[in-house]
Amino acid sequence: MAVIAIVGAGMMGSALSAPLVANGHELRLVGTPLDREIVVALKAGAPHPKLRAAVPGVSAYFVEELATALDGADAIALGVSSAGVRWAAEALGEQLARAPKPVLMISKGLVWQNARLDVLPDVFRALLPAPAAAQVCPVGVAGPCIAGELLQRVPTSIVFTGRSLSACEAWADLARGPFYFVHTEPDLVGAETCAALKNAFAMGVGFGAGVHEARGGQHGSVAHHNYESAVFAQAILEMQRVVELTGGAPETAVGLPGTGDLMVTCNGGRTGRFGKWLGTGLPLADAIAKMEGATLECLEVLRELDLALAHFDALGKTAPNELPLLRHLADVALRGAPAAMPFSRFGRRSA
Amino acid sequence: MAVIAIVGAGMMGSALSAPLVANGHELRLVGTPLDREIVVALKAGAPHPKLRAAVPGVSAYFVEELATALDGADAIALGVSSAGVRWAAEALGEQLARAPKPVLMISKGLVWQNARLDVLPDVFRALLPAPAAAQVCPVGVAGPCIAGELLQRVPTSIVFTGRSLSACEAWADLARGPFYFVHTEPDLVGAETCAALKNAFAMGVGFGAGVHEARGGQHGSVAHHNYESAVFAQAILEMQRVVELTGGAPETAVGLPGTGDLMVTCNGGRTGRFGKWLGTGLPLADAIAKMEGATLECLEVLRELDLALAHFDALGKTAPNELPLLRHLADVALRGAPAAMPFSRFGRRSA
Repeated sequence: MAVIAIVGAGMMGSALSAPLVANGHELRLVGTPLDREIVVALKAGAPHPKLRAAVPGVSAYFVEELATALDGADAIALGVSSAGVRWAAEALGEQLARAPKPVLMISKGLVWQNARLDVLPDVFRALLPAPAAAQVCPVGVAGPCIAGELLQRVPTSIVFTGRSLSACEAWADLARGPFYFVHTEPDLVGAETCAALKNAFAMGVGFGAGVHEARGGQHGSVAHHNYESAVFAQAILEMQRVVELTGGAPETAVGLPGTGDLMVTCNGGRTGRFGKWLGTGLPLADAIAKMEGATLECLEVLRELDLALAHFDALGKTAPNELPLLRHLADVALRGAPAAMPFSRFGRRSA
Repeated sequence: MAVIAIVGAGMMGSALSAPLVANGHELRLVGTPLDREIVVALKAGAPHPKLRAAVPGVSAYFVEELATALDGADAIALGVSSAGVRWAAEALGEQLARAPKPVLMISKGLVWQNARLDVLPDVFRALLPAPAAAQVCPVGVAGPCIAGELLQRVPTSIVFTGRSLSACEAWADLARGPFYFVHTEPDLVGAETCAALKNAFAMGVGFGAGVHEARGGQHGSVAHHNYESAVFAQAILEMQRVVELTGGAPETAVGLPGTGDLMVTCNGGRTGRFGKWLGTGLPLADAIAKMEGATLECLEVLRELDLALAHFDALGKTAPNELPLLRHLADVALRGAPAAMPFSRFGRRSA
């Protein structure tokens, strides 16, 4: 059995402990500077404040205890937000340079930099000191996983993806178990692109509930499921196109990282609620205010994609009539355009 | 404007009138021998008994008035069940031989015959008298459409698919409008295969709610969405494989006929409820009894696929480890095996 440190004690970082604890590993959960309240609760034996449930079998550490937690650890999982990836590279860089370890990342996002959309495992690796970057090939996680369900040991199927298949397999051996079904996926760029995009598209699927509500509809079978499902189908087609643009394999969007993760993200959660508010016709600022400060990953990913699309359009890599759903979502969520789904422009590859 | 006869006054046949009426066409809705009660209600100005809503702008006809309804009709839409396709070919064959008309079919299903899985537009055409079959190239409808939503003019996106693209376009011109977004899809076999398969797979997604309930779970965010979404993702992968076996294009499953229609079918309806009962561990006969005689298309399509798979396996066209989800669903729904989702055998092409 191994000693595993999870850095980042938010919902997903904490929930990842469940399959690892079930496999008999020793788990050390280290809070980031933003997780102080969570670590206080866990050290006191109280439920995790965000998951509202106990996280059994883990020892909790404050960020100041990071060195202690990493001492003797065989592997490190990063449970930081996309914004925390730079912090994590700084916090762990020296240690990983001295003693390289398998790294698993659950952060999701795309970063537009150097005229390219980069996925977070690549971003993290590039931020590491050269000796660490040379020896650590981070593994990403993609696929449908609601943290609270994983913690309750609901059967969960995901992919471990990375540029080194042996690194993926090593992490799969640590984590795979009776309720955590780990598949390995060599298309890191495709899988991570889907993982980032799903938040943007889930926001768009959420418009349907808002349009329904604005039309005076009640919860029930005659809702706007036809609307939502058409957006869902178009989302997968456009995921395939964006994956092509980031250099991944379009077929990766068919499977756990694309259809699976988009499905789970549409089944509740804050992204769908935010989309619903926009769908009712609420102005952007008011919809954001309704979310009471919750992190809106959909806005983050749309900002990066919007920059990328402007660049790709200028180069002629994308045609203006391509990706009508994604462009509409960016117009609504970044520039306050009214939600008016461009269904007539949807279709295969929309080119 | 055209005169359009819809034969079959069930939910979907009746709802199809909405976009056609909105376009100004004259609509004649003809009940089959099974629709007598519906026609009585509509003739009396009462709501449609199954849709529980008015069907505005249509004239209703009993089956005995079929000839009158067809007299002067420019096009015919078939709203019969899959079991009614043979009846429809007999009822309409002579008329279509005398005066061929564009035919649209909303029936969904696959038929295992002559060592082949056939889609219903082909089955219907083959049942027509030779002079009609030579001139009528039926168009199918696939994609996410809940009848009650279409009737309420909820934005709905579907594909018209057929072996003649001009026949598809002709019907699209009649039906396309501000809330009915019609795309044309030349891959008839692929689109119709997906349309039939979605019921089987939606049953499997429904297992998740049943497992959740059996574990004592309540309605809420910590449910079995991870389970459901993994099944959903696998369903699209297996749809692609079955489409290959029926001779369609696997990419057709990505888009409205596959992901879109499966999504809408999972969002409520009897197939999901039936799957939920099986997921709780209820024996097959009891789960069927719970459905109080409702038509279970999932059983029909699984029966045909089960015959096809036995044949394909024997020929070596399919390997026993392929299509693990579909095989499990057939075991549960046809042979009473307990629901025990084979997640560890899932994956891309599962070959």
